[in-house]
Amino acid sequence: MSEFDLIERIRARVASREDVILGIGDDAALLQVPAGRQLVVATDTLNVGVHFPAGTAAADIGWKALAVNLSDLAAMAAEPAWCTLSLSLPDGDPAWLEAFLDGFLALAAEHRVALVGGDTTRGPLSIGVTVHGFVAPGRALRRDGARVGDDIWVTGTLGDAAAALQQWRAGEGGDAALRLRLDRPVPRLAAGQALAAVAHAGIDISDGLIADLGHLARSSGVRAEVDLEALPASSALTAAFEAPSRHGLQATGGDDYELCFIAPTAALEAIERIARATATPITWIGRIVAGEGVRVFDADGAEWQPPRHGYEHFA
Amino acid sequence: MSEFDLIERIRARVASREDVILGIGDDAALLQVPAGRQLVVATDTLNVGVHFPAGTAAADIGWKALAVNLSDLAAMAAEPAWCTLSLSLPDGDPAWLEAFLDGFLALAAEHRVALVGGDTTRGPLSIGVTVHGFVAPGRALRRDGARVGDDIWVTGTLGDAAAALQQWRAGEGGDAALRLRLDRPVPRLAAGQALAAVAHAGIDISDGLIADLGHLARSSGVRAEVDLEALPASSALTAAFEAPSRHGLQATGGDDYELCFIAPTAALEAIERIARATATPITWIGRIVAGEGVRVFDADGAEWQPPRHGYEHFA
Repeated sequence: MSEFDLIERIRARVASREDVILGIGDDAALLQVPAGRQLVVATDTLNVGVHFPAGTAAADIGWKALAVNLSDLAAMAAEPAWCTLSLSLPDGDPAWLEAFLDGFLALAAEHRVALVGGDTTRGPLSIGVTVHGFVAPGRALRRDGARVGDDIWVTGTLGDAAAALQQWRAGEGGDAALRLRLDRPVPRLAAGQALAAVAHAGIDISDGLIADLGHLARSSGVRAEVDLEALPASSALTAAFEAPSRHGLQATGGDDYELCFIAPTAALEAIERIARATATPITWIGRIVAGEGVRVFDADGAEWQPPRHGYEHFA
Repeated sequence: MSEFDLIERIRARVASREDVILGIGDDAALLQVPAGRQLVVATDTLNVGVHFPAGTAAADIGWKALAVNLSDLAAMAAEPAWCTLSLSLPDGDPAWLEAFLDGFLALAAEHRVALVGGDTTRGPLSIGVTVHGFVAPGRALRRDGARVGDDIWVTGTLGDAAAALQQWRAGEGGDAALRLRLDRPVPRLAAGQALAAVAHAGIDISDGLIADLGHLARSSGVRAEVDLEALPASSALTAAFEAPSRHGLQATGGDDYELCFIAPTAALEAIERIARATATPITWIGRIVAGEGVRVFDADGAEWQPPRHGYEHFA
């Protein structure tokens, strides 16, 4: 399959939008940002062996490559619109490409994201995606707005993806529900957009709760105090991992792509409404105080130390 | 060097612009597209051994990674504004990164392009860049506007980068002027923006003149007829390569990142003015006729066949 065949196969399957003036097939895409909206841009690359286990199904890789990028838009409270795709492939296997597109385009269709351009190169398997979305001026959910006295919340459950990775590394069959969380993360777009009205700050959890909350605390100039027992766990995680290893996965495991957001205590009822309206589990996990860094406390009120820090490249 | 150190090193050196509301350091960048302008987006990834020879200087890799993307904006007649950078590095060598940034940011500064986000991952050396620019509605230079009777023009000289690659592959010392064309392509931004007023269509030459003109002819539904002897050659190329190998490099060699554009014959004087105003050599090389594909004719009027097709991934 030549590069041109590859691009034609992709182009043949791509849906468009009215604000795409010119999509795949020219030197660049031509796009129309709605009047009065700001552009939100995020980019994330997935490499085999680093961001997904070797042998991951092509459709899951396609889904995840877009999902981790849409999660960044969710964390900014942006409405997604367009994406580009840079595919580096070791060979031009049409079956692999079609399966990859099955996953990628299924998630794109769900959120009306148009694939408007990209490139294909020969090399080790690597998928680079850049996503574009919109937000009203002043309505983006940034990392730097947390204030002393605010509450800390998370969507969904934590630690599932890291648990699946641990099972895979151990060579076990692994739990299907946990593996689904690793392979098919669900970007919290509806929740992110709704929460922007009440939250002071937000971030998505890609490197692990402590690591990502640490970024947010540093940006905001505050300390985050987390209640270990409050961290939400899925029934699959609880069944497969007992404390303390479960706590380690919840507090430091990456790849869940849940949102962590900071809101004033007065927002409690609004948050409950948003949880119901967007069908998103939302759980209180701690408080913002003066200081710096992230501290985690166990059920006895003693400071808890994670078994290891969240995943970091080049660490 | 950790991922966070890497990002801090990059952030410390990046210049901003007034339309960057939020740059590196959050989940996504927040950007303001000017009222009444369309957004132009292109993305291109460079892999070691495919897009530049192993051993290429880090500063040259940085320059080229941005240049090939800006060349796509030039081919659309867009004014560049922002970019994101996805760096995959085999290790976290600070000296390599600083040298890479020297080249990347030098070109960015020249065109007031702000680096607003990206990511860093561990893996084989690979550089993915997405560039964003603006164009007035209806003023983009597309591939699909060539008409029968139009003239075909190119900027600069052709075949230099491919000649340098050939010398490098042969293990020769190589000509420094040719190698500079391979390592430091100059995106034709000023010429592209000026030509949009008179040209019907345009494309940048990355895969070789015949291959890229073929894309344009297909998009426009026309045939391109090229005069082999008219193809511009640098003095360095002429000194190092005699015909017919020089003709092969000019007609099929990739990586020069010159513009090929299509204009009505009445635009001749305007094109000469643009060449002077933007200090860009511009050369007539052929005509658009009815039909399809690209045909090249030698000095005797006989149809000329290239020694091989332009570079194509997965070929």
